[in-house]
Amino acid sequence: MNNDSHGADIYGASKIFGIDEDDIIDFSSNINPFGIPDNVQEAIIRSIKYSIRYPDINSRELIKGLSNCEKIPESWFFCSNGAAEAIFRIALCMIPQNAILISPTFSEYEQALTTVGTDVKYFTLEEENGFKLTDKIIDDIKIDTDIVFICNPNNPTGQIIDKILLEKIISHCKLMNTTIVIDECFMDFVENKEKYSTIDLMEKYDNLIVLKAFTKIYAIPGIRLGYCMSSNINVIANLKKSGPPWNVSTIAQAAGVASLEEREYVTKSVKYVKKQRQYLIDEMNRLNIKIYEAHANYIFFKLIRKINLYDELLKKGILIRSCSNYRNLDDSYYRIAVKSEYENKILIENLKEIIGNK
Amino acid sequence: MNNDSHGADIYGASKIFGIDEDDIIDFSSNINPFGIPDNVQEAIIRSIKYSIRYPDINSRELIKGLSNCEKIPESWFFCSNGAAEAIFRIALCMIPQNAILISPTFSEYEQALTTVGTDVKYFTLEEENGFKLTDKIIDDIKIDTDIVFICNPNNPTGQIIDKILLEKIISHCKLMNTTIVIDECFMDFVENKEKYSTIDLMEKYDNLIVLKAFTKIYAIPGIRLGYCMSSNINVIANLKKSGPPWNVSTIAQAAGVASLEEREYVTKSVKYVKKQRQYLIDEMNRLNIKIYEAHANYIFFKLIRKINLYDELLKKGILIRSCSNYRNLDDSYYRIAVKSEYENKILIENLKEIIGNK
Repeated sequence: MNNDSHGADIYGASKIFGIDEDDIIDFSSNINPFGIPDNVQEAIIRSIKYSIRYPDINSRELIKGLSNCEKIPESWFFCSNGAAEAIFRIALCMIPQNAILISPTFSEYEQALTTVGTDVKYFTLEEENGFKLTDKIIDDIKIDTDIVFICNPNNPTGQIIDKILLEKIISHCKLMNTTIVIDECFMDFVENKEKYSTIDLMEKYDNLIVLKAFTKIYAIPGIRLGYCMSSNINVIANLKKSGPPWNVSTIAQAAGVASLEEREYVTKSVKYVKKQRQYLIDEMNRLNIKIYEAHANYIFFKLIRKINLYDELLKKGILIRSCSNYRNLDDSYYRIAVKSEYENKILIENLKEIIGNK
Repeated sequence: MNNDSHGADIYGASKIFGIDEDDIIDFSSNINPFGIPDNVQEAIIRSIKYSIRYPDINSRELIKGLSNCEKIPESWFFCSNGAAEAIFRIALCMIPQNAILISPTFSEYEQALTTVGTDVKYFTLEEENGFKLTDKIIDDIKIDTDIVFICNPNNPTGQIIDKILLEKIISHCKLMNTTIVIDECFMDFVENKEKYSTIDLMEKYDNLIVLKAFTKIYAIPGIRLGYCMSSNINVIANLKKSGPPWNVSTIAQAAGVASLEEREYVTKSVKYVKKQRQYLIDEMNRLNIKIYEAHANYIFFKLIRKINLYDELLKKGILIRSCSNYRNLDDSYYRIAVKSEYENKILIENLKEIIGNK
């Protein structure tokens, strides 16, 4: 039933199953269970009157805040209408002939590259290896490879990549004159993220682009706000030219500025998600569900028994992500978000009923 | 001083001239002087809590409203992050080899086409002819012309194009297998717009794309909401694929739905703008300023005397659009928006002082 290539079509699911959107518990989108911070909601309301003006095409105030927060220069930032827009702009301004993607991974990289006619090759993550990335990918990155996308933690599989391995890959890419995009959209949910984030490697490697979003950690997917960073000023200039100038709304810029003040909210979220993730893992283990290593606010798993879990749960008003339309996966794989304690308990109760191991 | 290729950089102007943004009267953006309708502001506030979800990638409710309003099928719509995004997507999904633009016109067409490497030729509008489009453009549209963009009323010059001439051009484009995009972003300000709009020609011509925006008429440039229409379902499908799926924010969709209810606001706006436009024209005529025919909510004019009107007015806290960076124009051309009676009077007082014909 999940024909859409994206997880988050609650509107379509609601129509097909005849359930009101507000009655669906959405485990298909990996959004911070704490919801939109009050301070951010207030900033949005305050920004409405300024929406009578065109947005600042340079997102000056937002980039100033980001620069303080990420500790890199303002000139290294490009803000976008969600991280997805940055992905499409990267493809459009580079028009790469050859790309390497890992598989399975977030589908937007492939979609964006296809739009500009790139020949995409895949480095397959092995199930036997828990879908972990290995240094074998280095053999695949050759002199004619124009771009590589790596998602860390990877979506949907959840694995985090060792930083030593990542720097080896980035450094090999530099040798091959290959651009490498590291998507850290879920990094803010990772404990001790400094150990894993490649933001500090940008100064050394001008072939590295790091991608992030406000979407997940601040629970504002409907606002659309992402950004990417590179120490290569030409890359930033080309990203700006490769699409409309007023891409980030006045409201998104205001929401972003207010979000960056929410340090405590982020700390609390990471702690809460960790506890709830462990609860879900423990309960699912008891149901003999095969779970892969999880580091962010979602859990990727395999169901051995032949059950259409997507349909079964949606009948009960719970929307999860079937991973059947990912490359290298099939209809036995699913992804769920880590949500609030209350919602997670409902999910577990329903899983017990459906899987029948009460 | 106006180095930006867009008129509306109030943020940059504010920095350069050391004036607070809120103290600048912005005549450079052509926004409805009535401001954002209350009903739309309330809809935005209500939509904040739904921003915790990804936006509907199919803008279902909005397109339903648009379909009722424009009296064309839902399947003919594509909604975008401002009309500018639609322009870039048209370029990206068609990758035209050859294009014809009129000159001067809105700069985004050229910028979008340049991004995909299109060879752009210009049909020059003649000053002696009041910058009116003539049927001579037909000779320039040949079998190798892939796309033509026409802005009606034209931005910045303000002229409206006779519908008989427009259908002649569209029909010739059809013969030549050429896509024609008619940008009607300012059409809602035109009296008796039905006489000029080409929306009713789409059924007959599947090579026609009509572009519109909520930006100007509902005074929401900061929200980012535009749309385009075509009876060619393949064009709509390709537009969807040529960029990120969640391009229109939850807030923009809600603002759009609420805007479509505002029929009386639109009627009143058109009447008010007409009266204020006439006031400005009369006063500027008295100052011997050369004004070209104006049909929308802006006035295009030429200053014979050598005065840097942009700088002179900005010193007084008034931002206008210098047209010096448009093709086929120079620093004697300017564009001003039609604003509220109060603001228009301030402009006229200042013009009198600067031009010195008190």
